[in-house]
Amino acid sequence: MTTGNGTERPTGADRSAGRAGRRPGAASTRGQVLEAARARFAADGFASTTIRGVAGDAGVDPSQVMQFFGSKEGLFAAVMELPDSALAQFSTAFDGPDAGLGERVVRAFLAAWEGSAQVSEPLMAMLRGAIAHEGARAQLRDFIQARLLEGVRGRATGDGPELAMRAGLVSAMLVGVVMGRRVIGVPALAEADTEQVVEVLAPAVQEILAGT
Amino acid sequence: MTTGNGTERPTGADRSAGRAGRRPGAASTRGQVLEAARARFAADGFASTTIRGVAGDAGVDPSQVMQFFGSKEGLFAAVMELPDSALAQFSTAFDGPDAGLGERVVRAFLAAWEGSAQVSEPLMAMLRGAIAHEGARAQLRDFIQARLLEGVRGRATGDGPELAMRAGLVSAMLVGVVMGRRVIGVPALAEADTEQVVEVLAPAVQEILAGT
Repeated sequence: MTTGNGTERPTGADRSAGRAGRRPGAASTRGQVLEAARARFAADGFASTTIRGVAGDAGVDPSQVMQFFGSKEGLFAAVMELPDSALAQFSTAFDGPDAGLGERVVRAFLAAWEGSAQVSEPLMAMLRGAIAHEGARAQLRDFIQARLLEGVRGRATGDGPELAMRAGLVSAMLVGVVMGRRVIGVPALAEADTEQVVEVLAPAVQEILAGT
Repeated sequence: MTTGNGTERPTGADRSAGRAGRRPGAASTRGQVLEAARARFAADGFASTTIRGVAGDAGVDPSQVMQFFGSKEGLFAAVMELPDSALAQFSTAFDGPDAGLGERVVRAFLAAWEGSAQVSEPLMAMLRGAIAHEGARAQLRDFIQARLLEGVRGRATGDGPELAMRAGLVSAMLVGVVMGRRVIGVPALAEADTEQVVEVLAPAVQEILAGT
């Protein structure tokens, strides 16, 4: 947690003072970049925000932003106070061959949302924040939309908007299932183990993403 | 709104004074019943709460509770500040023959959650309340669980807990889809019209509830 990578969560202490193992000034520079990114994501949305623009606002070189956060996704994760790995788990979920796609997607979502507390708790906090606050909601909306469109851009076949909608429906329904299990905690759902949920949902997700 | 049925929402004015068209004292009696019901649902849960118990706590006859709220569901709806019709739309969604079940369920959920503001807004308020507050969450959890178990009790075939889980997964995923469309408002989802969503989700829901 002293390497300045995107898995580090911004805190007041983080921004106001350097910590052991980091060179003086790095923490406050990182904090300035985060502040600038937060403002850019809020004002322009995820798709229109650039590393270059954020770097300019923060008065640093773009290479420094990359050094701290690795990518625009990493920067977004840091602004949303998520560990890098939380978003990485979704970014490849819809990739790969159609065979077994439903099962891979269901497992990726359950692994992220119901796996280690280090990933699932910040994700849950982000979701609660987005439900409660319009600012967080707008950022999340824009990020999800950008990722859905990006996810279908590389596909050789199929109707892009239709595929983005199908991937979006699957994402939304899986988050709903996680909410039913972990937030509301309905016993009929919460008591089912991961394998049971995969068994029931994988064919349905397969149907939505790739037809029967 | 002067008939004392469950579609009436409790308000401070409602509880403190009778209104035109209602006999004096009815409003405060209704308010006492609601207070008693709120306490019982919170302490004992939906399944264990009885009309008789609530009536006893409120110092009224059970027939008066029925007169005001029609049923335990109606009483719960009033406590959750939902119109009767909001819950009625779900109560029959999973009934009927397997043929076309997926489509009927998807349409029932979308009609309730995305239909008239009179029904969808209180439902959304209930969901937000349950996400934010443990008290509301516990009541909703218990109500959903009771309804899921009740829904499979009359089925001649199949494994009860398994069917309750499947109905619960469908409910949770459809609420997730509604959240993605109406709360977070992701364009790829929000811009799809009801028929598109039905077309994509009905076969998946059919798969979950009744096999392919």
